[in-house]
Amino acid sequence: MSVVDAIRKKRDGGALSAAELRDFVRGVTDGSVPDYQAAALLMAIFIRGLDVDELATLTDAMLHSGEVVDLSALPGIKVDKHSTGGVGDKISLHLAPAVAACGVPVPMISGRGLGHTGGTLDKLESIPGFSVDLGIERFKAVIAECGLALIGQTATLAPADKKLYALRDVTGTVESIPLIAASIMSKKLAEGIDALVLDVKCGAGAFMKTPERARELASTLVAIGRKAGKRVGALITDMSQPLGRWVGNAVEVQEAIEVMSGRGEPDLVELTLALGAEMLQLGGAAKNAAEGRAKIATSLQNGSALARFKQCVELQGGRLPSETRGWFAPGSERVQGPQHGGFVQAINAEAIGLAALKLGAGRVRKEDDIDHGAWVFLRKKVGERVESGEDLAWFSTPRLDRPAEIAADVRDAILRAYTLGAEPPERQPLILAELLFR
Amino acid sequence: MSVVDAIRKKRDGGALSAAELRDFVRGVTDGSVPDYQAAALLMAIFIRGLDVDELATLTDAMLHSGEVVDLSALPGIKVDKHSTGGVGDKISLHLAPAVAACGVPVPMISGRGLGHTGGTLDKLESIPGFSVDLGIERFKAVIAECGLALIGQTATLAPADKKLYALRDVTGTVESIPLIAASIMSKKLAEGIDALVLDVKCGAGAFMKTPERARELASTLVAIGRKAGKRVGALITDMSQPLGRWVGNAVEVQEAIEVMSGRGEPDLVELTLALGAEMLQLGGAAKNAAEGRAKIATSLQNGSALARFKQCVELQGGRLPSETRGWFAPGSERVQGPQHGGFVQAINAEAIGLAALKLGAGRVRKEDDIDHGAWVFLRKKVGERVESGEDLAWFSTPRLDRPAEIAADVRDAILRAYTLGAEPPERQPLILAELLFR
Repeated sequence: MSVVDAIRKKRDGGALSAAELRDFVRGVTDGSVPDYQAAALLMAIFIRGLDVDELATLTDAMLHSGEVVDLSALPGIKVDKHSTGGVGDKISLHLAPAVAACGVPVPMISGRGLGHTGGTLDKLESIPGFSVDLGIERFKAVIAECGLALIGQTATLAPADKKLYALRDVTGTVESIPLIAASIMSKKLAEGIDALVLDVKCGAGAFMKTPERARELASTLVAIGRKAGKRVGALITDMSQPLGRWVGNAVEVQEAIEVMSGRGEPDLVELTLALGAEMLQLGGAAKNAAEGRAKIATSLQNGSALARFKQCVELQGGRLPSETRGWFAPGSERVQGPQHGGFVQAINAEAIGLAALKLGAGRVRKEDDIDHGAWVFLRKKVGERVESGEDLAWFSTPRLDRPAEIAADVRDAILRAYTLGAEPPERQPLILAELLFR
Repeated sequence: MSVVDAIRKKRDGGALSAAELRDFVRGVTDGSVPDYQAAALLMAIFIRGLDVDELATLTDAMLHSGEVVDLSALPGIKVDKHSTGGVGDKISLHLAPAVAACGVPVPMISGRGLGHTGGTLDKLESIPGFSVDLGIERFKAVIAECGLALIGQTATLAPADKKLYALRDVTGTVESIPLIAASIMSKKLAEGIDALVLDVKCGAGAFMKTPERARELASTLVAIGRKAGKRVGALITDMSQPLGRWVGNAVEVQEAIEVMSGRGEPDLVELTLALGAEMLQLGGAAKNAAEGRAKIATSLQNGSALARFKQCVELQGGRLPSETRGWFAPGSERVQGPQHGGFVQAINAEAIGLAALKLGAGRVRKEDDIDHGAWVFLRKKVGERVESGEDLAWFSTPRLDRPAEIAADVRDAILRAYTLGAEPPERQPLILAELLFR
């Protein structure tokens, strides 16, 4: 059987056999299938799609293209959370310790930021000394000790996904729900988890701009996970405005610590309770959502989540500054609202993410360096009243080499991201839909 | 503007701008667009198609990716013929001299055989000493002297087509009418011709298996040619059974000489008259089809076509054996028909082409050597009566290293290619449709 035959079959709308999909993934991994053939098949898949059996086989082949972590020696039901990427989404930083504090182990393998979206690894690396490259044995040891570990993708996990993702990036085949789903799930299933909660972002700051696309991705992810024998639930959550008030890296760690100190913005707390309650249920530590929410809330209030976080940071080599408030650079720039004032109707999350990117908080290409100290602070969020001439936001970066020019651009961009109106907007829900495991 | 943007646009069914198509072809030619991006765009074009403006621009960009021959110093309207490929199709060998003998110059750049189809260049190279690699200046000089020249594609003509064709071959993107049409027309228009007659083959031995596909290809080719300001006509002709009685290389030259000697099979003569009449009209040497047919017929009868052919062969370095009958190897194998006999209903041309390929008359891959002396002779053609146990065909090859085994396989294949029935079949037309230039 040749790759060309498989390409022709998918091109004409046929379904690929398990052998064809496995040969393809094997060939991509060992380099025997050239990039041009992989590109042609990816485009055919993009346009023609994959059915659920093809998708389960593709994901399984990608997952088995490298090492599959075995966490079976660790007690408990291991549960991870994966978000499809947003702006200001620091949830993992405090959710993982909170769930661990409630007795469910969280082996979390996260990604880096790209484009307007932030990445958990970048935020963690703003903590001096923190290492996200532990190796699998140390990863297990840290989980055994504190109930969680927060690391990056290793080269040995799902190498086929790395190659295919790099190729999709340069061949216009990124925004395909089957290919996105196979990419996410092959990596997650390679982690050795028993259960997974997916946070599928929807709105201006997310890759899925409409509820329909978000729901399609969520149900595809859930279907793959369940075909693989895992407990999987998904929430579709709003990413029209950024989560919380801080967008950046060091500042987002700080904001997560606020949540673990019993404070924190209502949207951050609400999403943490919703995701955490589902994780506790999948992990067998809560009988229902109400019990799960209560346990997570307690862990945030009584300091147990924060204690787990500090323990994890220390085990991974990090040193949290004692006075974390000091991280915020003084002398930040101000974004003044319009003279007419009003109520914030919307804040375009993608535009805020791109402004933070321009300040150095993100990366345009994978190989770019980022500046952990750059940030945007949203002084006003959706629904809040802005008095005439009051500041909407502040921002800062340590690396303004042409400060006036960049500051003016960023100020304009943030101002344009805000929509004000005379009346308070209708309240939008944060959780748009739930596909829960029952 | 990036290639990825163009890929995404075509992927989503949009129309590419002239600048996008020209940048793509330029990048393919100079290597700055990597194969994987070209493959992704080819697949998107395969599935989404190209409109007539996109197609004209793509063809024009491919044609200008290399040298464009300038034949304007030669007097007359230069007319070429192109066939989409068949089995036993030696028409070019005698058609070009016949048209030249009628006063219309024929600058013919032909291809090689691939798979089950034969190629004019391979047939010509069976003539000892004949060179198909003249270079453009010598090409022009030969035309000036004898009214025709028969050469192969040079490396300088339409190099983008060579690269794209090679890539299509390994990425499952061959059978796309827009891509086939752009490939053919970019090469033909680079020859410096004024007019072109297309022989679009249809049936079991052709790339276009159905009249609908053949008509779509023909009208696409004609549309591109006319957009480029050329006089273009097309015939759709039957390729369900091979043309003439001989399939091979040296034998097909011999059969063409038979036609130019006033003999030759009726189907060969009929197709020569039809294509020649159209070429003479496009070339201004005949007022209508009847006059064109009469002139071509005369050139085949009075030896003027044969004289042109001999002159051309000599100018291109070839030496025709004086006793051409001697080319046929003695001791050929026989394919005996069934005991019940009957009338030949059909001869699958593709199966005959593949049998000839097995004997060494063709090539599986471009780099394969071929055996000019291998052949299949169709003793019986469609409509003819076969007596009980009479031979259907004969075949021979100089390189039977495992003669018995290969001979048995080929005999079986040829036998299976024949369909016999008790009654004479309904007569099928040779010319299925005409798209003529008026």
